[in-house]
Amino acid sequence: MKTNQSHRSLTKSQVNVGIIGLGNIGSAVADNIAKNHAAILHNSGLSLTVAKVCDIRRPKAGHNFTSDPYDIINDPAISVIVEAIGGEKPAAEYILAALKAGKHVVTPNKEVIAKHLPQFLAQARQSGVQLRFEAAVGGGIPIIAALQENLVGSQLSEVYGIVNGTTNYILSKMLEEGMEFDAALKEAQEKGFAEPDPTADIMGQDAAYKAVILAASAFQAQVDWRQVYREGIKAITQEDIQYAFEIGYVIKLLAIARLQNKKLDVRVHPALIAHCHPLAAVSDNFNAIYVKGQPVGELMFYGPGAGGGPTSSAIIGDVIRVLENQNIRVSDNGLKKIPLLKIEDISSRYYLRLRTFDRPGVLADIAKVFARCRVSIAAVTQKEMVGDLATIVIVTHEVREQNFQKALAQLKRLGAVRDIGSMMRIV
Amino acid sequence: MKTNQSHRSLTKSQVNVGIIGLGNIGSAVADNIAKNHAAILHNSGLSLTVAKVCDIRRPKAGHNFTSDPYDIINDPAISVIVEAIGGEKPAAEYILAALKAGKHVVTPNKEVIAKHLPQFLAQARQSGVQLRFEAAVGGGIPIIAALQENLVGSQLSEVYGIVNGTTNYILSKMLEEGMEFDAALKEAQEKGFAEPDPTADIMGQDAAYKAVILAASAFQAQVDWRQVYREGIKAITQEDIQYAFEIGYVIKLLAIARLQNKKLDVRVHPALIAHCHPLAAVSDNFNAIYVKGQPVGELMFYGPGAGGGPTSSAIIGDVIRVLENQNIRVSDNGLKKIPLLKIEDISSRYYLRLRTFDRPGVLADIAKVFARCRVSIAAVTQKEMVGDLATIVIVTHEVREQNFQKALAQLKRLGAVRDIGSMMRIV
Repeated sequence: MKTNQSHRSLTKSQVNVGIIGLGNIGSAVADNIAKNHAAILHNSGLSLTVAKVCDIRRPKAGHNFTSDPYDIINDPAISVIVEAIGGEKPAAEYILAALKAGKHVVTPNKEVIAKHLPQFLAQARQSGVQLRFEAAVGGGIPIIAALQENLVGSQLSEVYGIVNGTTNYILSKMLEEGMEFDAALKEAQEKGFAEPDPTADIMGQDAAYKAVILAASAFQAQVDWRQVYREGIKAITQEDIQYAFEIGYVIKLLAIARLQNKKLDVRVHPALIAHCHPLAAVSDNFNAIYVKGQPVGELMFYGPGAGGGPTSSAIIGDVIRVLENQNIRVSDNGLKKIPLLKIEDISSRYYLRLRTFDRPGVLADIAKVFARCRVSIAAVTQKEMVGDLATIVIVTHEVREQNFQKALAQLKRLGAVRDIGSMMRIV
Repeated sequence: MKTNQSHRSLTKSQVNVGIIGLGNIGSAVADNIAKNHAAILHNSGLSLTVAKVCDIRRPKAGHNFTSDPYDIINDPAISVIVEAIGGEKPAAEYILAALKAGKHVVTPNKEVIAKHLPQFLAQARQSGVQLRFEAAVGGGIPIIAALQENLVGSQLSEVYGIVNGTTNYILSKMLEEGMEFDAALKEAQEKGFAEPDPTADIMGQDAAYKAVILAASAFQAQVDWRQVYREGIKAITQEDIQYAFEIGYVIKLLAIARLQNKKLDVRVHPALIAHCHPLAAVSDNFNAIYVKGQPVGELMFYGPGAGGGPTSSAIIGDVIRVLENQNIRVSDNGLKKIPLLKIEDISSRYYLRLRTFDRPGVLADIAKVFARCRVSIAAVTQKEMVGDLATIVIVTHEVREQNFQKALAQLKRLGAVRDIGSMMRIV
C-alpha cells in the first residue's frame, strides 16, 4: 500500500510528456503545461515538461518537434503520451502502440475510445499502464472521474445528459429567440459553435460515442457503438419547441445510458425535459450530465463541453492523476457485456403532435387507437384550427415503445389524421 | 509507482471498518456497506466488513458492538474508522487518536473539520494515513474530490454555492409560494428539512464551516472559522424576494471562497443571483457548488446535500478510495496561511431597498450620496407609494464594500429616508 511517504519521493520528480497532434487541443495542452508549471509543481509535486510534440501536417522548427509519432512512442524518456489527433485513424494505431510501449495514454478522443476501449484496456492491463479519457465526455467537467471513482459508494442506475454543445446551442436559440433550425444552425456556425460540416453533431453521432463512454464508465459496460439507437435534431420545428414549452418542457438532445433489470439501455435522441429538471436550465453550448444511483440519489455535473481551455484542463488533470498513481476503476476490472435493449423494448413517456381534419369524433377515434394498443394517455391539447386542420398534442404515460409505435402506425391509417407532425420521448 | 499489478494483489482483500457513532448517518453507512457488499467487491476488489461499531448513548447487543470508542481506535484488525458522531467534541479527540493509532479516518463532520483540519492533517502525515471528508460539504456531491483531485489541471479562483439545504428549502418556499420566513421555516421543520433548533442553519454557521472546508480543498488555504464573515437569512422578507425576482434575481444563502490577487475572500451571506446563473435553478433542499478556474472555465456540481443515503454514499466512496490508495492533494501539501480579506475590503455589486418620504428631490439627494461615496448606480426602481412612503430599489455596479457602507450610513442621515429595508450583495 502506498503511503504519503512514497508520494514524497515523487516530489519535484521530472516527468516528460509527449503530445501527438498539435491542433487546437494539443496546442492548448502544451501552452497550459508551460504556463501552469509552477502551480502544478506546487500542487502535485510534479515538474511536467512537454518533451516532444508531433504533428504530421504542420512540421515546425525546434529540437522537441517531430513529424513521426513513433519518435514519441519509442522515446524512453517519455512516460505519458497525450493523443490529440482526433478521429479513429490513425489515432487508434498510435494509442495501441503507445500502450504496448509501456506509456500511459491520455486522450480527449471520444470516437477512438467509443470504438476501441476494450482493446485499449486489455493492452493497458497487459503493459501495466493507464489509459485516461476524462476530456472525451463533457470537456472540462470531471464526469468520468465521478463515475469511475468518486461515486463508487453507490450503485448507479441512470446517466444521461447534454453532451453536445452544438446541438444545445441550436436548441437554446430555437427556444429563446424563436428561430427555426436552419437559422439557428447558421448562427451557430458563424459563432464557431458548429463545424462547417455539422453532420456528426446534428445527427447525434458525437453524442452516441459519448453515450458509449458513459455506459463504460458508469456500468463497466462494453457497448458496440453501432448498436446505439440514434436520432438527430434536424426534424425539430419551432412548433414543437413552443408546444413543449407550453406543457412544461424543453427539448434537449440527450445521450442516455441506463442499467435496469440487468439490461442496458443506451440511446441518443431529442427528448422533452420538464422545466423543474436540473438539465432544463442548461443552455447555450454548455454541457451537463445527470446521474442517478442508490443510495446517493440525483446529481448533476455542469460545465463547458468543449474548447481548448476546458479540454486541456481535463487532459492535464488526467496526466497528473496518472502520475499520482490513481487506480482506474474501468481499466482495473475491464468491461462486461451486458444485454442491450432494442429501442422497441424500452419504456418511456411520449410526446406526439399530429394534424387532423375537422371531423366529428376524431378525438374519440384517436383515443380508441391508443386504448387498443394499451397506450395510456396522460394529457391532450387540441390547438386552434389552421385552415381545415386541427393540431393535437398528446402526452402519454410510460409505455413500451413497441406499443406506442403500433399506435402510431394505426393513427397514420385513420382517415381523419392528416399527418404525424412529430413524436419525441419524455425523460 | 503502483501499477495494476499491485492493485490485483488487493483483489478480494478483506478490510475491517469501524464506525464511531450510530445515529442516522452511522447506521446508513453500516446498512449500505452490508447491502452493497457484492457490488463493492466487484467494483473495487475490496471486501468491506463493519467489524465494530460504537455508540455511547445507545448500547446494543451483538459481538461487534462497543460503547468505548477506544475499542475501535485500538483494534489492530481495523484499518479505517468512520467518525459519525458529529459536532466538535468528543469527535476531535477520537479522530486525532485514530490518526495517531495509524487508522485512516473518514468523516462527514463539517464542524470538526472546519475547526481542526490543520492539526488532523499534520497527524495524518506523521502517521502515514489518510483523512477524507467528502461528505462534509454537499452530502452526496463529489465536490471535495473534484476540488482536491479532478480539477488539478486548472488554477481555481472561485468556489461558491448553496451548501445548506434547510435555508435553500426556506428561500425556495418564500419564492415559489409567497410565504414569509417564519411560515417557511415552520413548514421546513414539519417536513424534517429543518432542525427543531434551526439556529446553526438559519444564521449561516453551518455554511461557514463548509466555506472553510471549500477554501481548504480548492486553495489549500488554512482559514480560521471564527474569521469568516457571516450573515443569516432571518431578515429576508417576501418583499425582497419579489423585488429581486422582478429585476432578474433570486436570493440564495451562499458559502463563498475566492482567491484573488493572492488574497482570500471567505464569507457566508444571502446573495442575489441572476436568473441565468446555473445556481439560480437550484431549489428545495438541494445543494450545488459553482466552481471557476483557468483554463477550465465555469462548472457546477448539483445534488442532495444531506440525508443518510447520500451522505453514506460519499462516506463509503471515501473508505474505498482510501483503500485504493488515493493521494489526497490537501493532505499531501498541508495548508497555507493566505491573507484573508476583511468584509469592508471586498468588492461586490449591491442591492438596496429603502423607504423614503414623498418629497421633491429625494432621488437626487440619494444619487448625490452615492456619487460622493464613489458608488456607481446601475439601476433604480421607484415603487408605487404606500401611504406617504415610497420604496426605492437600487442596484449598484461593483464597488468596495466600505464605500457602499459609507453611503449607507449617509443615506440613513438623509431627512427624506425613512429607513433602510435591506441590503444584499449580488453574485
